[in-house]
Amino acid sequence: MSILVVGSVAFDTLETPSGRRERVLGGAATHFALAASFFTKVRVVGVVGEDFLPEHEAVLTSRGVDTTGLEHVPGRSFHWSGSYMRDLGAADTLVTDLNVFADFAPKIPTSYLDSEYLFLANIDPVLQTRVRAQMPGVRMVAGDTMNYWISAHRENLLKVMRELDVLVINDNEARMLSGESNNVRAAKGVLELGPKSLVVKYAEHGSASFFSQRSFGDGEPHKPFRAPATPTEEVVDPTGAGDSFAGGFYGYIASQERLTPEVFRRAMFYGCVLGSLSVEDFGTERLQRTTREEIDRRFEDLREISHL
Amino acid sequence: MSILVVGSVAFDTLETPSGRRERVLGGAATHFALAASFFTKVRVVGVVGEDFLPEHEAVLTSRGVDTTGLEHVPGRSFHWSGSYMRDLGAADTLVTDLNVFADFAPKIPTSYLDSEYLFLANIDPVLQTRVRAQMPGVRMVAGDTMNYWISAHRENLLKVMRELDVLVINDNEARMLSGESNNVRAAKGVLELGPKSLVVKYAEHGSASFFSQRSFGDGEPHKPFRAPATPTEEVVDPTGAGDSFAGGFYGYIASQERLTPEVFRRAMFYGCVLGSLSVEDFGTERLQRTTREEIDRRFEDLREISHL
Repeated sequence: MSILVVGSVAFDTLETPSGRRERVLGGAATHFALAASFFTKVRVVGVVGEDFLPEHEAVLTSRGVDTTGLEHVPGRSFHWSGSYMRDLGAADTLVTDLNVFADFAPKIPTSYLDSEYLFLANIDPVLQTRVRAQMPGVRMVAGDTMNYWISAHRENLLKVMRELDVLVINDNEARMLSGESNNVRAAKGVLELGPKSLVVKYAEHGSASFFSQRSFGDGEPHKPFRAPATPTEEVVDPTGAGDSFAGGFYGYIASQERLTPEVFRRAMFYGCVLGSLSVEDFGTERLQRTTREEIDRRFEDLREISHL
Repeated sequence: MSILVVGSVAFDTLETPSGRRERVLGGAATHFALAASFFTKVRVVGVVGEDFLPEHEAVLTSRGVDTTGLEHVPGRSFHWSGSYMRDLGAADTLVTDLNVFADFAPKIPTSYLDSEYLFLANIDPVLQTRVRAQMPGVRMVAGDTMNYWISAHRENLLKVMRELDVLVINDNEARMLSGESNNVRAAKGVLELGPKSLVVKYAEHGSASFFSQRSFGDGEPHKPFRAPATPTEEVVDPTGAGDSFAGGFYGYIASQERLTPEVFRRAMFYGCVLGSLSVEDFGTERLQRTTREEIDRRFEDLREISHL
């Protein structure tokens, strides 16, 4: 079935201990779409400028991603520059040029309206709410956010929270949202804000899922789960790892008939696999050259390192 | 089979967000012995002063721990005071009174000489080497260390490393020992120092095991493994969690006929269980009131949250 993802499509300038790259293709929607494309049909809603060339669009379309909803407007694309020289786990932002993204007003093509799965990547929660309202028939809504919206746009963000079947965030964001430092209490606090379920990403320590009392999936009770991460000896570029996780996770869910607890758990494994692949090269380079076979081998490796 | 543990037996004064306790029973050998006692026979070698009363010794002996090797000498016992008010993950040491522990010269009772398993808890590596030499017939040697010995007594510590079948340390210690910040490279670096295997504890993120190329256990090849931690909503007192992990881990290994890869993996789960129990109350209180049934229930819970 189809996932509609709305979010940023951008160029990133990256500095890590492994090297430097100028204006490579990035953005949350890009990483998410590529990762999810190994499992299901993906449709992108975003905005780009005149510097976004056919060769960039081909990165998405060659993986079967539908870019009908990628609006081209005069001006330059969103450009972000970050350095991981101080800490591979946390980027120092050097430049944020929103450019055409500053006036992003998501427009959903008619051909996207039958999408069964909606993913609201990290954008202004006001836009997230607006997109969600335009897709009343979706089977499931998942989303992400970031520290900026949590601290400065909390009221708007809380409206989105109540619309989500799954919120996918990292541990810092869970602590910020809940005001709790303990991971388990932080998760409980986030669930009280409204999402039916929560997936927290812990970078090299994998991920965990938590569920509210609200009916979810096929009605079978879901229980907390803990997935490991693929042990990675060299992180070349962590940018987009979280979005790739979300894409692998949600892409697998959208590829399955039913959302059983086992499907949810397997989806977390796939999320970890796509996240671990993503960091092995700059930007989207590693995801561009992976295969479903490689992904499934890593899935089995994850099972092997975590099962008795 | 029997484990001989050599290490500190102490009194701890603890300050955590959950409260304050004065001079409660602590020390690495104490936590280790209590945790291991749920699986096998444990014998302690340590030193205490006149403030160590029969009621303290009874905490160990009532769990079947053999305290023949617990030397009573004039003076006061080792006393440590720490505060977790700033960070539950890292104690601020307020007081370290070594007292009788300053002149600790481990003496192994004749009745201990047939112990099959040796655990060298965190003490001066010169003493660790001396004890190991006095136990030539043991089937297996495991040990721990800490930042102080890593930075200020590295040469002595390296001699111990080469004697170990299993080194059990936390992630900071692995990074210090190896000089590597990446977890996988840190583990490889530590294994190059000599231990046949390495278990790294990641606090609330569980633990991981790594193996050198040297023959180990029953000869079956061991592969890296990742065990989750029991999700814990309230950490009352983290003191001794790592020693309780080691006790559960090694106690289970000593209770099994053979050291197969599966036994090693299950031992890591038991380590996580004992560590998670330990932090739920001050000092040894939680371990004193647990049962093997409760431990096995938590073992099954860990399986459930981590298996597909």
